[in-house]
Amino acid sequence: MKKPVRIAVDAAGIDGGIALAAAAISQALSCDENLELVVFADQDAADGIARTLSDPRVQVETCDHSLAADLNAAAAIRRGNGSTMWLALEQLRAGQLDALVSGGSTGALMALSRHILGTLPGVERPALMAAIPTMTRPVWMLDLGANIHVDARRLLEFAHLGQVACQVLEGKAPRIGLLNVGTEPGKGPDLIREAARLIDENPELNYAGFVEADQVFSGAVDLVVCDGFAGNVLLKSAEGAIKLLFASLRSEFQGSLCGLIAKSRLQRVHDSLDPARHNGAPMLGVRGTVIKSHGGTCSRGFARAIELAALEARHDLVGRLERQLLASY
Amino acid sequence: MKKPVRIAVDAAGIDGGIALAAAAISQALSCDENLELVVFADQDAADGIARTLSDPRVQVETCDHSLAADLNAAAAIRRGNGSTMWLALEQLRAGQLDALVSGGSTGALMALSRHILGTLPGVERPALMAAIPTMTRPVWMLDLGANIHVDARRLLEFAHLGQVACQVLEGKAPRIGLLNVGTEPGKGPDLIREAARLIDENPELNYAGFVEADQVFSGAVDLVVCDGFAGNVLLKSAEGAIKLLFASLRSEFQGSLCGLIAKSRLQRVHDSLDPARHNGAPMLGVRGTVIKSHGGTCSRGFARAIELAALEARHDLVGRLERQLLASY
Repeated sequence: MKKPVRIAVDAAGIDGGIALAAAAISQALSCDENLELVVFADQDAADGIARTLSDPRVQVETCDHSLAADLNAAAAIRRGNGSTMWLALEQLRAGQLDALVSGGSTGALMALSRHILGTLPGVERPALMAAIPTMTRPVWMLDLGANIHVDARRLLEFAHLGQVACQVLEGKAPRIGLLNVGTEPGKGPDLIREAARLIDENPELNYAGFVEADQVFSGAVDLVVCDGFAGNVLLKSAEGAIKLLFASLRSEFQGSLCGLIAKSRLQRVHDSLDPARHNGAPMLGVRGTVIKSHGGTCSRGFARAIELAALEARHDLVGRLERQLLASY
Repeated sequence: MKKPVRIAVDAAGIDGGIALAAAAISQALSCDENLELVVFADQDAADGIARTLSDPRVQVETCDHSLAADLNAAAAIRRGNGSTMWLALEQLRAGQLDALVSGGSTGALMALSRHILGTLPGVERPALMAAIPTMTRPVWMLDLGANIHVDARRLLEFAHLGQVACQVLEGKAPRIGLLNVGTEPGKGPDLIREAARLIDENPELNYAGFVEADQVFSGAVDLVVCDGFAGNVLLKSAEGAIKLLFASLRSEFQGSLCGLIAKSRLQRVHDSLDPARHNGAPMLGVRGTVIKSHGGTCSRGFARAIELAALEARHDLVGRLERQLLASY
């Protein structure tokens, strides 16, 4: 039997609002009988949830307000007190909850997680790990948070954090690739070559060498390490290219009989590959299980983020990360 | 009547070999009656060209050898003498040619162009500008060469180079975007915010602000400025995502009647969007018109690279760039 877990849901920032969150919550509960959810909501949202859901495993915490989806880190610290995100993080820190799933602003979630939960030994700022679709399985990549100024030791830290997280999420040690502009050992910036040396000389890490951005999508490795700038460019570029391609396909097939028949197939491929649908980005390096959900996700995606949170909490990912970090210093 | 131009073709490094190059040459000649081509080829390739093409406007220069497609910059300088690329660049410098199109190694072409042609005032290393597909028209982006360590002034220089090139290639001044991880003014690394300030305060440049990688594909701006690392990640990520998507579409449609009907439509969309097909990357900042062709291009793509070279040579892009650079210091 699965270990009982109690997970906070901060639905602020989810484009689909309370209706989508309620559908996601129902899906998640139906697949996991030892799951309890606490929804943090402002008054309006709380009323909506109460009308839609009446499951004894769902509790609603009414909060003063919720944070805007584009709120930056500094404003979140200044104005976050009493918000859905803030109160959920406080209960998580106090041990009343096992994990938090939030659709709110990434900057706010990073800042408040760090502020309220604190970070693990040696970690200055948390990193965000997200799944990239490939033909066979998702490839995990970090950092997709805002860690833009990194040094080689920070990239090594990402490799450690990602390795432990992949072991929990995928059940095996990942082959680790370092994002670069070529695969030959001499390629790329000094910083990345130095990080390659650090990762490679660490016997616990299964280092597979440099990967170029296109190889990420062919599943050449299981975990891709990069700074937050390159990670953002990679993910957003793929999103932009896929969006452009589906717009072109729609205009090419429009109005034809073939288009009518093709529609469901195109939709299936779209759903399987849209990076936004591979939802649920673990925030690694904070003292608590926090999952960032894409704001534009569907109910299936939001349910998946809740499942990820439950999986991480049950496997004590945070405790494992802490032991790994202490051992690697 | 178009001004007569004489353009060198270095077909070494083109995956499709001499057959593809010959087809491209025929296409280019048929669209441009004032075009002359000089094909630089090793003995085998020269024999092949002589057997395939017998146009009085095509001349073949037989060279000792051609450079490997993956040759790096240092090896190109050491071993390049007597190669197809080297001899074409020497004739370009001597004024016997108006431009060079090469499918060879980017590193070798950058190094030998700089070594043999020299660079324009204030330019330390050339930049490579490539076209990214969007729904309506290509968006130009630089750098896609190997300029990884850039400062804010170098990004300003890219904006100047790209602006002049876009004026020649598209006939109008581009809206310029700076690649970043967010669009708000405070976002991203110091270096990029400093570059934004430099570009924005320059009255000759039509600065449109930061762009995120996904916005590049929606055609939010006409010219995207970034360092060579981010440019490589953006382009390769889009290539990888599009390749993955077409593989998924093929497997989804396979074996069905609809798939049979859809095939040509899918191919059309593929051809219109594959970044590799938007072929021909102007190398900016060297004293000569040099176009890098993608090695994996089709004959239509290689012909397009030749057309770009003719366009740049006829509009004296290099002279314009030199005047612009002198004026901006």
